[in-house]
Amino acid sequence: MQDKLFLVEGLKSVLEFLNSEMKVHEVFGTELFWQQHKLEIEHSGAHFEIADDAALKQAGTLSSNNAALALVHIPEVELDGLPTNKWTIALDGINDPGNLGAIIRIADWYGIDRIVASENSVDAYNPKTVSASKGSLTRVRVSYADLGEMLKGFSGTILGADMEGTDVHTISPSKGGVLLMGSESHGISKELSNLLTQRITIPRHGGAESLNVAVATAVICDCLTRG
Amino acid sequence: MQDKLFLVEGLKSVLEFLNSEMKVHEVFGTELFWQQHKLEIEHSGAHFEIADDAALKQAGTLSSNNAALALVHIPEVELDGLPTNKWTIALDGINDPGNLGAIIRIADWYGIDRIVASENSVDAYNPKTVSASKGSLTRVRVSYADLGEMLKGFSGTILGADMEGTDVHTISPSKGGVLLMGSESHGISKELSNLLTQRITIPRHGGAESLNVAVATAVICDCLTRG
Repeated sequence: MQDKLFLVEGLKSVLEFLNSEMKVHEVFGTELFWQQHKLEIEHSGAHFEIADDAALKQAGTLSSNNAALALVHIPEVELDGLPTNKWTIALDGINDPGNLGAIIRIADWYGIDRIVASENSVDAYNPKTVSASKGSLTRVRVSYADLGEMLKGFSGTILGADMEGTDVHTISPSKGGVLLMGSESHGISKELSNLLTQRITIPRHGGAESLNVAVATAVICDCLTRG
Repeated sequence: MQDKLFLVEGLKSVLEFLNSEMKVHEVFGTELFWQQHKLEIEHSGAHFEIADDAALKQAGTLSSNNAALALVHIPEVELDGLPTNKWTIALDGINDPGNLGAIIRIADWYGIDRIVASENSVDAYNPKTVSASKGSLTRVRVSYADLGEMLKGFSGTILGADMEGTDVHTISPSKGGVLLMGSESHGISKELSNLLTQRITIPRHGGAESLNVAVATAVICDCLTRG
């Protein structure tokens, strides 16, 4: 029982974790939550403790949580070789937990089940990240690595989002590889830039200086996965 | 001077408003800000008051603001007929100020300069919306209207994002029209659904139940504006 745990909050997310392959350690919930979801809780093998609204609110980070919270074991992610026939998202220095959570949810929508973040990126099990990922952490594995080392050893396609690159609409995407996204303020670091197979850009038609990194990730994933 | 004002916070946003066609009423900034941006402030015609860090932090809503804030006149938006040869984004019941701000920024990226929101949507001049829109409110006009009335009188294309619609990658987009987005929790209201020319869907490849409304708006705008 030396595993690290993370906090999942709110009815919908707690249910999604109970019904997933993730190992839920303990659930705190209202009496009503127990009555309505007893089977799922028992089936998951999690301990259950009754808690009232005030206790849930105090223990959690959300301004309102009137049903349940759970402590879930952080899964071990084995970083064996990256596949070349499906996409992995690599994140260079993503600091905002809401953006990371949004990217996890976007990856899940596009069927990408693996994200590798640089070691200076925000923690994927931060409550704000978990909340923004809307249950997608049950299906997407996030690990941390020295991206330079990882990409040097990778023989597949490495696309990097950049303000000056090939129009993402015109590339002929491979079946997979790595999509590298940098932070909004600093972009992709120079060391990693040199490892890219191709720089790609989302064409701009108006005046905004940039797109949010999660929004840009979604647009590029949509382009890469369209038939 | 009976205009309504809204608050713009932080160095970059204040400068963007000073350099835009928006009417800046007053700027509060540090002595350094005045020294560095005196010409822009004078050129804008705005009043200027020196304020120290503590005063800026107290007057604003951001946790850190070490340069300036501004009070800007809310522009009059005339809602004459919607164009059929360029895109307008219509928003049905968008409640989250961060999402609205993100959509304003996305519209600006894709060269869409007009957003019409239903009357029950969040205020575009809420400080959180202004902050998330990153200066794009200087170029994108947001107005509020009874969307049902507005769309009934519109003869062009009306696309609506829906979980069950035509694959957005397969439609042949017109040069313009209205893109209607509903809220994440309620979707497009039934009354407005009946007014759509076409329902469109972003194909899902994985397990996530939905995309965030701003993210979905970006993906669809990207598809509508690609050459």
